[in-house]
Amino acid sequence: AFSSAQTSKRVSVTKVRATAIEAENYVKQAPQTLVRPGIDTEDSMRARFEKVIRNAQDSICNAISEIDGKPFHQDAWTRPGGGGGISRVLQDGNVWEKAGVNVSVVYGTMPPEAYRAATGNAERLKNTGDGGRVPFFAAGISSVMHPRNPHCPTMHFNYRYFETEEWNGIPGQWWFGGGTDITPSYVVPEDMKHFHGTYKAVCDRHDPAYYEKFRTWCDEYFLIKHRGERRGLGGIFFDDLNDRNPEDILKFSTDAVNNVVEAYCPIVKKHMNDPFTAQEKEWQQIRRGRYVEFNLVYDRGTTFGLKTGGRIESILMSMPQTASWLYDHQPKAGSPEAELLDACRNPRVWV
Amino acid sequence: AFSSAQTSKRVSVTKVRATAIEAENYVKQAPQTLVRPGIDTEDSMRARFEKVIRNAQDSICNAISEIDGKPFHQDAWTRPGGGGGISRVLQDGNVWEKAGVNVSVVYGTMPPEAYRAATGNAERLKNTGDGGRVPFFAAGISSVMHPRNPHCPTMHFNYRYFETEEWNGIPGQWWFGGGTDITPSYVVPEDMKHFHGTYKAVCDRHDPAYYEKFRTWCDEYFLIKHRGERRGLGGIFFDDLNDRNPEDILKFSTDAVNNVVEAYCPIVKKHMNDPFTAQEKEWQQIRRGRYVEFNLVYDRGTTFGLKTGGRIESILMSMPQTASWLYDHQPKAGSPEAELLDACRNPRVWV
Repeated sequence: AFSSAQTSKRVSVTKVRATAIEAENYVKQAPQTLVRPGIDTEDSMRARFEKVIRNAQDSICNAISEIDGKPFHQDAWTRPGGGGGISRVLQDGNVWEKAGVNVSVVYGTMPPEAYRAATGNAERLKNTGDGGRVPFFAAGISSVMHPRNPHCPTMHFNYRYFETEEWNGIPGQWWFGGGTDITPSYVVPEDMKHFHGTYKAVCDRHDPAYYEKFRTWCDEYFLIKHRGERRGLGGIFFDDLNDRNPEDILKFSTDAVNNVVEAYCPIVKKHMNDPFTAQEKEWQQIRRGRYVEFNLVYDRGTTFGLKTGGRIESILMSMPQTASWLYDHQPKAGSPEAELLDACRNPRVWV
Repeated sequence: AFSSAQTSKRVSVTKVRATAIEAENYVKQAPQTLVRPGIDTEDSMRARFEKVIRNAQDSICNAISEIDGKPFHQDAWTRPGGGGGISRVLQDGNVWEKAGVNVSVVYGTMPPEAYRAATGNAERLKNTGDGGRVPFFAAGISSVMHPRNPHCPTMHFNYRYFETEEWNGIPGQWWFGGGTDITPSYVVPEDMKHFHGTYKAVCDRHDPAYYEKFRTWCDEYFLIKHRGERRGLGGIFFDDLNDRNPEDILKFSTDAVNNVVEAYCPIVKKHMNDPFTAQEKEWQQIRRGRYVEFNLVYDRGTTFGLKTGGRIESILMSMPQTASWLYDHQPKAGSPEAELLDACRNPRVWV
């Protein structure tokens, strides 16, 4: 199997970094690259993946900002041993209550339980004991956008590239993960057909089996187990992807992240001026409470981030600006709210 | 050591119950007792503890309702193999946005990871393997009250009695746990002196070492690790308490739960009509976001409940009706908001 070690003069992460993740040094302008210059070279997968997500951050933020009319606020930082991040947040916008797009590059070490949270592959970690910390490299882009209008869906995407070094007898690993998924408060079948259709087309360009596989995986992943309902109406999700040439997976990931705007923005533009009632706004708030429940209890990225001591404000940027919990709220049978709940409980095939 | 088996004709829980927790059968009126009649006799610790928490539920709900002017809504249920619950919720009240007081009695079996979440005593569970499920009995009262006015604090209490049966070579255990803690949005030293003073007096009546020990434990327990700040301004917390005659711990728990009204209500009455600004309301919402973070990520009762498949609406009754997350919110230095944050980061000794 390919390893990025072949194309980068890799220095063991363990020698560079003693603690989990070092403190951030805030910088006015993000450096050209967040990977370690001269160590992880331009042609390494680490550097190339970073380029993909940096470009995507620029183009997606531009598209969102143009619709909203308000610019993103940026925070950028580096860390002494290499890596860093760029958080861009649009808060209290005209169309979005809160929209954030983060890029981060991390050289770190993680406790075994965080390794388990980072990878869906539990099998790989069986019988390894809990000794020591696992050195890793991770680069990723992640984003959540919560619009004001309850007829505009929330959208989330995340694309990431991971490498671990040899640890407790397990050789170093690399894998890709990611996905884009949508969380409306109301079911609008044509919108779902557009969103899922866009991603089906992306998938089909790379592997005819991808869409079916990643759509199903998405419905499984975003299950709020204690409620027996999904966070939203799906999309695509994949993890631990390393079953083929990494170049092919890089191409697929690039195509997927570059189609976020096309999949999402037309739906927002269509509904951003829809009239809505106080009840519809309340229902959106209740669904946001569910969003919070999923993210804090189950989401792998969030629990991984909280355990490894990453930058909290960037990790929890995914939280909605407002959310609500009502005791034993049950939508009326036959109502549009009940219809949404049904679609969250029984995932549908949209395309 | 004492075991409630001495005073109750105990039937192995494993024989009665196959699944984790059975489905609820809703009942119009809660039965006189939720323990298994004829098996767990009136003089058993199980039945006596239930009586304490049922009486407390009545008296606390009455006191809150009298202040608020609105009654509690009640849901009650039993389960085929014994046990059940009574949830009382006051939502959209005049003084409280949401106030809930739950009583539950559970005969169940839990996976080992839930056992670990249920007890703070990790040592006890070392080297036991993960095989099988642990049969247990649990009875508890739990409550969270979220007022409207940002100058009125949120308050939480929980008192519980646990028994496990023999499992994987570990003999059956019993222990008490509980505590009452307060979460204001602003620091009012006299209020904290009143609240902590009430519980110091309760503790001192039972053991001069209790208050210092349980106050410290509370500050440790309610730490939001990823933020390095506590959920609120403390109170008392204890778990795994079985170091003395259970009669004495029952007396202490009874005294503690019976002082909730005295510790909390005068503070609410004092501030319920305080004028407040939009900024103060927003700050309260941000602190409620932190409350949600603690409960969903760290709280033992919540994670235990979600894992064992208890009644979700009762478990998540603790969620505030409204909460908010703002990106990188930093209170101005010297502001009352910064003062609260400082007290959450550096626990103070109030009495």
